[in-house]
Amino acid sequence: MFRSRRSSHPRCDCVPLWHSSRPAVTVTLLVGQQFFENYSEQRRKVVDIGLFMVPFRLPETNLQDGFDWDMQVIRWAEEYGLSEVWVGEHTTQRWEPVASPELYLAAAITQTSRIKLATGANVPANHNPIALAHRLMQFDHMSRGRLMVGLGAGATREDLQIHGTSEPKPMMAEAVEIMRKVWSGEGPQRHEGKYWTLDIPAYSEELSGPFMKPYQQPHPPLAMAGLSPNSGTLKEAGAAGCLPMSFAINRDYLAGHWHKYVEGAESAGHKPNRNDWRVAHTVFVADTDEEAMELAIKGGLGRSYREWTWPSYARSGMLPLMAPELDEHDPATMSLEYFAENHWLIGSPDTVVKKLQRDVEVSGGFGTLIAFTFDYLDQPEAYRRNLELLGTEVLPFIKDLEHQTESLADLQQQVAVAR
Amino acid sequence: MFRSRRSSHPRCDCVPLWHSSRPAVTVTLLVGQQFFENYSEQRRKVVDIGLFMVPFRLPETNLQDGFDWDMQVIRWAEEYGLSEVWVGEHTTQRWEPVASPELYLAAAITQTSRIKLATGANVPANHNPIALAHRLMQFDHMSRGRLMVGLGAGATREDLQIHGTSEPKPMMAEAVEIMRKVWSGEGPQRHEGKYWTLDIPAYSEELSGPFMKPYQQPHPPLAMAGLSPNSGTLKEAGAAGCLPMSFAINRDYLAGHWHKYVEGAESAGHKPNRNDWRVAHTVFVADTDEEAMELAIKGGLGRSYREWTWPSYARSGMLPLMAPELDEHDPATMSLEYFAENHWLIGSPDTVVKKLQRDVEVSGGFGTLIAFTFDYLDQPEAYRRNLELLGTEVLPFIKDLEHQTESLADLQQQVAVAR
Repeated sequence: MFRSRRSSHPRCDCVPLWHSSRPAVTVTLLVGQQFFENYSEQRRKVVDIGLFMVPFRLPETNLQDGFDWDMQVIRWAEEYGLSEVWVGEHTTQRWEPVASPELYLAAAITQTSRIKLATGANVPANHNPIALAHRLMQFDHMSRGRLMVGLGAGATREDLQIHGTSEPKPMMAEAVEIMRKVWSGEGPQRHEGKYWTLDIPAYSEELSGPFMKPYQQPHPPLAMAGLSPNSGTLKEAGAAGCLPMSFAINRDYLAGHWHKYVEGAESAGHKPNRNDWRVAHTVFVADTDEEAMELAIKGGLGRSYREWTWPSYARSGMLPLMAPELDEHDPATMSLEYFAENHWLIGSPDTVVKKLQRDVEVSGGFGTLIAFTFDYLDQPEAYRRNLELLGTEVLPFIKDLEHQTESLADLQQQVAVAR
Repeated sequence: MFRSRRSSHPRCDCVPLWHSSRPAVTVTLLVGQQFFENYSEQRRKVVDIGLFMVPFRLPETNLQDGFDWDMQVIRWAEEYGLSEVWVGEHTTQRWEPVASPELYLAAAITQTSRIKLATGANVPANHNPIALAHRLMQFDHMSRGRLMVGLGAGATREDLQIHGTSEPKPMMAEAVEIMRKVWSGEGPQRHEGKYWTLDIPAYSEELSGPFMKPYQQPHPPLAMAGLSPNSGTLKEAGAAGCLPMSFAINRDYLAGHWHKYVEGAESAGHKPNRNDWRVAHTVFVADTDEEAMELAIKGGLGRSYREWTWPSYARSGMLPLMAPELDEHDPATMSLEYFAENHWLIGSPDTVVKKLQRDVEVSGGFGTLIAFTFDYLDQPEAYRRNLELLGTEVLPFIKDLEHQTESLADLQQQVAVAR
């Protein structure tokens, strides 16, 4: 790893994270970095690398050019062997301006043949879930089974407000129940819900309908994402049999995320698999550490954090979660250089592999690294090279055999031993 | 024009259509073919040719191959100079298996650069109209303004049933009102409707949102389609400032459709333009009349009518409308050959141009001929040639100057004179 000339912060890889006094990060106390460095004799490997297209659109990029750019990024991702691309859903945020990820990704179906295409996440409460379920089924056929479906209750207040969605959590629960019934394709079947009524007619030879079932049976893989240290969403994901995704705002929450997921999964009789686990991270790879640092901090990545993500997190009170080791300082002093060195995966392929191994160990192991994409319309070649290095220099080094996945009892025993 | 060896029906181009005793076709009495042949000294020209992808999918074609075929058809359409492609929306009909036309067409955005892409029609009552409006805005940007939006109350009972849409007409009215408000982009704005609540937050510098407005201002062109002789929908289309489309199940209803449209338009102070009028028709062009007849009747076109459209029309009581001149006969005796010769645009380019001129005269003139697409996965070259001839041999002959559009008073005077 390297130390940037621009950094004014000390290296702090080894700061014991349980020195934090924040009550919100108690999971860190159980499964922090030091513990796993002692525990993990058998190193777990990342199996795949994918992308998350939030898409962090710079304000000077119009929606048309932004779309063309994102399609180019997806073509590069497929070319360089990345496994999947997730696209967000928002209606009220200029920096995250994709209202319908499935519509966006449909345009990529005919540009690619292999890469998985994933909504991240649909907010079913903001849709007619019957229409959404049909649209996703159609996508599944159009892409010959390349669809994964993220589900979210809607974390953005304004997105819920504009849709008049007053009760997002119970609406999501009902919507997902309805979507599963649509995907079952069984009629006649009636669901008179609080928010929607599903009324599948009997199959009719005359109409040959309702006829549609998902290409992937029983339905496309579902996923849910968590971010905060004690993410209840990841426990829900486990209980619902959904794939888990963690937003790695701080690597030290990751092991706790997995713990929560296993807890949920076992409570519902599901067998979790670490290979299913996606960890979404901030990544930029260049030929040298210096070049990567320069491109990340001065380019679309740095601007997205400075002008959008950090102010957003500050508004919602989440900013201190990103670096609890700095919690004695004014969060406003948090610098891009500090995060680029100490938290994100920024650097040459060698550096990024080493940093990634650290995160794999801290987390206990995950299946797919998901790199957020950024707006580099002004430096397309540098961004192409980033993806090329990610696929050809980072991925081969970490692509390996399957993980072993511990039971909840094993995990708890490890925690007890560590205590 | 030609007479097929296979036809067992007499030619009946000149049967005076007002001999029909069906009360449903009174419009024909006002503006039938004979009248316009006398009236039209100045022949009106069709300006463009487009496609309507219902998409009439043969049962043996799976949804994946069907999608690939439809994308190929759209690429050919662009290559041969056609202007637009419309895609239907159904959830319960195996022969018309596109649940989300905008999702389908999104996949064509990256395959084409010029051709207009149109939903035909979205049924807003079956969607959350706020989400639908955003999805369509996004499409408008992705395609740089190539979107047109068809709107329908939902003609298929099972499609409404599965969505639990109990009051399609008032729901559509409210949904369209909400969609227009979303497209206006003005917040704060609240619409507490009977079925949905729209609550646009104020624009915020911090969120930079809600920020999205349609690429085409004030919104993408809207369209509505009519089919039956006294189509109230076309009057509504005129009043709502929507583009009109006629399904030419019988050419003799066309002039009445236009009359209705002008009536609606003038009632709302809009100035109608015949160039806006789309006429959707059954078309197959080959190098010779014999070849076209053979390909149409024995191929996907003929099968779609025999196995799907006619049985569907028979179930809904609409079959006799297709050929009122045959109404003394058992509708079951209606043959593909009869329609291919007397109603549809089937034949060599010369023949199709002549038949099209007849329809243009009978209708009073329209702007765009819309050809239904069919499933010719087993004979792709013949279908490609059909589109090539349509674009390169039929279109240049009929592409010409703008129509003159009469006022309602002019139209009524013409009818009075004819009487």
